[in-house]
Amino acid sequence: MGTSTTNGASAPSSSTAMRPWADDLPNSIRVEVGDLAVPFRDIAVTGESPVRVYNTAGPIAHDLRDGLPKRRADWVAKRWGIAAPTQRWFARHGIVTEEMRFCAIRENVAPEFVRQEIAAGRAIIPANINHPELEPMIIGRKFLVKINANIGNSAVTSGIAEEVEKLQWATRWGADTVMDLSTGPNIHATREWIVRNSPVPIGTVPIYQCLEKVKGKVEDLSIDLFLETLEEQALQGVDYFTIHAGVLLHYIPMTAKRVTGIVSRGGSIMAKWCLHHHEENFLYTHFDRICDLMRKYDVSFSLGDGLRPGCTADANDEAQFGELQTLGELTKIAWAKDCQVMIEGPGHVPMHLIQENMTKQLEVCDEAPFYTLGPLTTDVAPGYDHITSAIGAAMIGWFGCAMLCYVTPKEHLGLPNKKDVKDGVIAYRIAAHAADLAKGHPGARLWDDAMSKARFEFRWEDQFNLALDPDTAREFHDETLPAEGAKSAHFCSMCGPHFCSMKITEDVRQYAAAQGLSDEEALRKGMEEKSQEFTEKGAEVYLQA
Amino acid sequence: MGTSTTNGASAPSSSTAMRPWADDLPNSIRVEVGDLAVPFRDIAVTGESPVRVYNTAGPIAHDLRDGLPKRRADWVAKRWGIAAPTQRWFARHGIVTEEMRFCAIRENVAPEFVRQEIAAGRAIIPANINHPELEPMIIGRKFLVKINANIGNSAVTSGIAEEVEKLQWATRWGADTVMDLSTGPNIHATREWIVRNSPVPIGTVPIYQCLEKVKGKVEDLSIDLFLETLEEQALQGVDYFTIHAGVLLHYIPMTAKRVTGIVSRGGSIMAKWCLHHHEENFLYTHFDRICDLMRKYDVSFSLGDGLRPGCTADANDEAQFGELQTLGELTKIAWAKDCQVMIEGPGHVPMHLIQENMTKQLEVCDEAPFYTLGPLTTDVAPGYDHITSAIGAAMIGWFGCAMLCYVTPKEHLGLPNKKDVKDGVIAYRIAAHAADLAKGHPGARLWDDAMSKARFEFRWEDQFNLALDPDTAREFHDETLPAEGAKSAHFCSMCGPHFCSMKITEDVRQYAAAQGLSDEEALRKGMEEKSQEFTEKGAEVYLQA
Repeated sequence: MGTSTTNGASAPSSSTAMRPWADDLPNSIRVEVGDLAVPFRDIAVTGESPVRVYNTAGPIAHDLRDGLPKRRADWVAKRWGIAAPTQRWFARHGIVTEEMRFCAIRENVAPEFVRQEIAAGRAIIPANINHPELEPMIIGRKFLVKINANIGNSAVTSGIAEEVEKLQWATRWGADTVMDLSTGPNIHATREWIVRNSPVPIGTVPIYQCLEKVKGKVEDLSIDLFLETLEEQALQGVDYFTIHAGVLLHYIPMTAKRVTGIVSRGGSIMAKWCLHHHEENFLYTHFDRICDLMRKYDVSFSLGDGLRPGCTADANDEAQFGELQTLGELTKIAWAKDCQVMIEGPGHVPMHLIQENMTKQLEVCDEAPFYTLGPLTTDVAPGYDHITSAIGAAMIGWFGCAMLCYVTPKEHLGLPNKKDVKDGVIAYRIAAHAADLAKGHPGARLWDDAMSKARFEFRWEDQFNLALDPDTAREFHDETLPAEGAKSAHFCSMCGPHFCSMKITEDVRQYAAAQGLSDEEALRKGMEEKSQEFTEKGAEVYLQA
Repeated sequence: MGTSTTNGASAPSSSTAMRPWADDLPNSIRVEVGDLAVPFRDIAVTGESPVRVYNTAGPIAHDLRDGLPKRRADWVAKRWGIAAPTQRWFARHGIVTEEMRFCAIRENVAPEFVRQEIAAGRAIIPANINHPELEPMIIGRKFLVKINANIGNSAVTSGIAEEVEKLQWATRWGADTVMDLSTGPNIHATREWIVRNSPVPIGTVPIYQCLEKVKGKVEDLSIDLFLETLEEQALQGVDYFTIHAGVLLHYIPMTAKRVTGIVSRGGSIMAKWCLHHHEENFLYTHFDRICDLMRKYDVSFSLGDGLRPGCTADANDEAQFGELQTLGELTKIAWAKDCQVMIEGPGHVPMHLIQENMTKQLEVCDEAPFYTLGPLTTDVAPGYDHITSAIGAAMIGWFGCAMLCYVTPKEHLGLPNKKDVKDGVIAYRIAAHAADLAKGHPGARLWDDAMSKARFEFRWEDQFNLALDPDTAREFHDETLPAEGAKSAHFCSMCGPHFCSMKITEDVRQYAAAQGLSDEEALRKGMEEKSQEFTEKGAEVYLQA
């Protein structure tokens, strides 16, 4: 299907250019706030002002061949001539950029606070100067917890159109960034379509493309090929690169006795290169040259954890923490060059070992944002690793992890299809929001409270619309009570009218409210007097019950 | 379909009597160990001894009309004449019962340890003397974390056959106990079919049947009707009763200002009764009479949290902790009568407030086992509450909660169907196992390590068989690599051959092993010497890579 790219890959046609699903979720509209047109989603709620939530979905339907509106073009144009036009450079020079203001409005904080966090290295705004379509977002532990969705085809599967649709599908459900992990043919073309149509930062693992260029011969990899590939991708507008510069020669033998050794693709590639050449990792020895290139385009570092544990048995071992130490050293080098940096983390970690990961990372990486994959809290549930990992992700998010890389139900088994992408994104939106609640992030609770009120008042339509996944909530409700009448029924299929605790509570509440009873009073007056009160006023309450 | 019960309800016919699915999971067999024939599941693993795991599925196919073999009949018969034939009474009199020995073998601990935990009230074995079909199990924080699955029809849905099938389906996937929450007609008949065919303890909420008896008129409830109903259910063999004796009159006004008031069905029923009669909860005022009946049959108390929070906003409030205090007082009364007791807990609790629930419960209830519903860590994801709650369940299980009541994807939306029951059970098996790992429960890790080894060695069939849900694991793998050959392929669809980190690690490991390198050595010898080593021996390793 579709038009054909130079290398013959199937690219999106105009017919697929329009999203095959509704632009907005039910009873929601995209609103754009202020002179920077910062996007939000307003969810209409019966009889109350709409609930305004964060919105990652991007502008409404457009032709994929045109790409998204280039909202950052003018912002970036003004900055020509600055050697290191990174958000960190501006922040450290006291300049609040449009990107910082944009993020401040999105997060409901002061622009100056955003600037300070970025200057301190505690937060980053991944925003390549060549990605004008971007709606800037901030990653840092003093902001909302973010989630990343991985897409990308492999030698085994899928075409460009499919990947672009996955991008839009992932952001529709709430992905804050998307990584394109394509390894098959057409990596370049696929990436171009993705970046031009992405409102969220795009991340890649450049070593994958390098390996394609040397036809899989790891030993032929070199720093020059790597830098050339970085530049190719930076010019396309990729916002952050995963770079496994911490896989040092002397860490490699530490993985030999592990149950699952090295499980990171990039990590194993660099390990193989190091062993073959009996030389130190060229990403480490030439790190300064990489920094110079990154800052030219303001591509953020995502320092890869190539030695992350691949099973709970290998968690928090010498190899993992040794590499983390090195990532901490590299962070300081990158900062000195005004590059933005985040640090990647595990992986597979049982619950009791999660906190140590967060504590150590903040310590050895000077509070640079942490970006973990899960972690998965058990190894025995392939097919359900979005759940085994949502548990660990929610916990580490609460402990201070800034971004959570999703895991789909297909992890360890295959590449995610559209359904898997949605399941992974929803599981991680749950983990991130649970973490925001636990951190007491201002405003995080408003959404929950709106849902709870709707639940208590039997506003079924509002419950569906306020749900992270309105379609599924409605579908599940209708399975047992399909009748439209049931949408306004003051009971539900779980209990039926007799047993409706909500109904009874309403009476209790009305009664107590009518009596102006506070908890204190209730206790002070004591049982006896209270009984009398009930005797006098109680009856009428329950005539209508 | 099927034969008809006295009250005309549709009961299972012989055709549905045989389970409509395979008796054992793939490559697994049920084994029975020792003179008590304690069940386990042995999972065959290529080239290694089988992995032996806990087994809740019960005996293989039988005719539902006959019920399960009555393995406890003789054990119980010997005990006639004892006024309080409870496991607690025996434990406190230094007697190790067959049930205790059975649990000791299941948990791989000493029988004397089981006896001590029960005597101390830190654990219970719910085992009604009239439930001879039971395969005894123990609930306590020093044992494996258990999970409960709720089934039961309501006025709105489903028949007896369907509920019995849900029972077998739930235990097949790992439910340790099952609560029958039926509220519609045929409660008695449904329960009879369930108990006779259940290898796991059955719990109920007797107040539901009482309310049916008074045709939904809460004010007509009385202690005599309640005791009569308890006896009816105790005679059938129900193993534990949820009793909301902690909902006291003076706590009720404390719920008036909540966002969602009272959400427990039993709690709201008792609240309504109290307000109507302006009297104290009759379950509280006549608690001693309830104890006398419970101990006669050794029905365990599950003291209900009728005032649990129904949303994160109401978590850990005065009403909730006030009731908990009362449950602690009642625990001592029940213990004095040698009744077994566990305590029910929330509900909806954000992550940062979960630990306090566990700490307070252990303190005010003298370490009686805690049994929580979730808790759900956010309110905004109806349709995914098996995930919002698995996060909280795993955490509180790690903190010391003894049993986790599952939440299905249908929570807040409708009654669970078979798929929902499975999804809920699997999510909770994950939470419980993650908690066992975090608690360092002896042997818990063996299963994970076996899976990780199979993963590292590309033993795909073993990975499927070792999975909590082998069917789904295989199905997901086959979606991308259906060919039988792929089952033995030394790579998978995620990376393809070039990028296979596992493959590369194998080389690294073989190399290091061949050199007899330990981490220590590797570090001691230092980089230089190591480089030389690699130069000498390295080449040949990668000739075959």
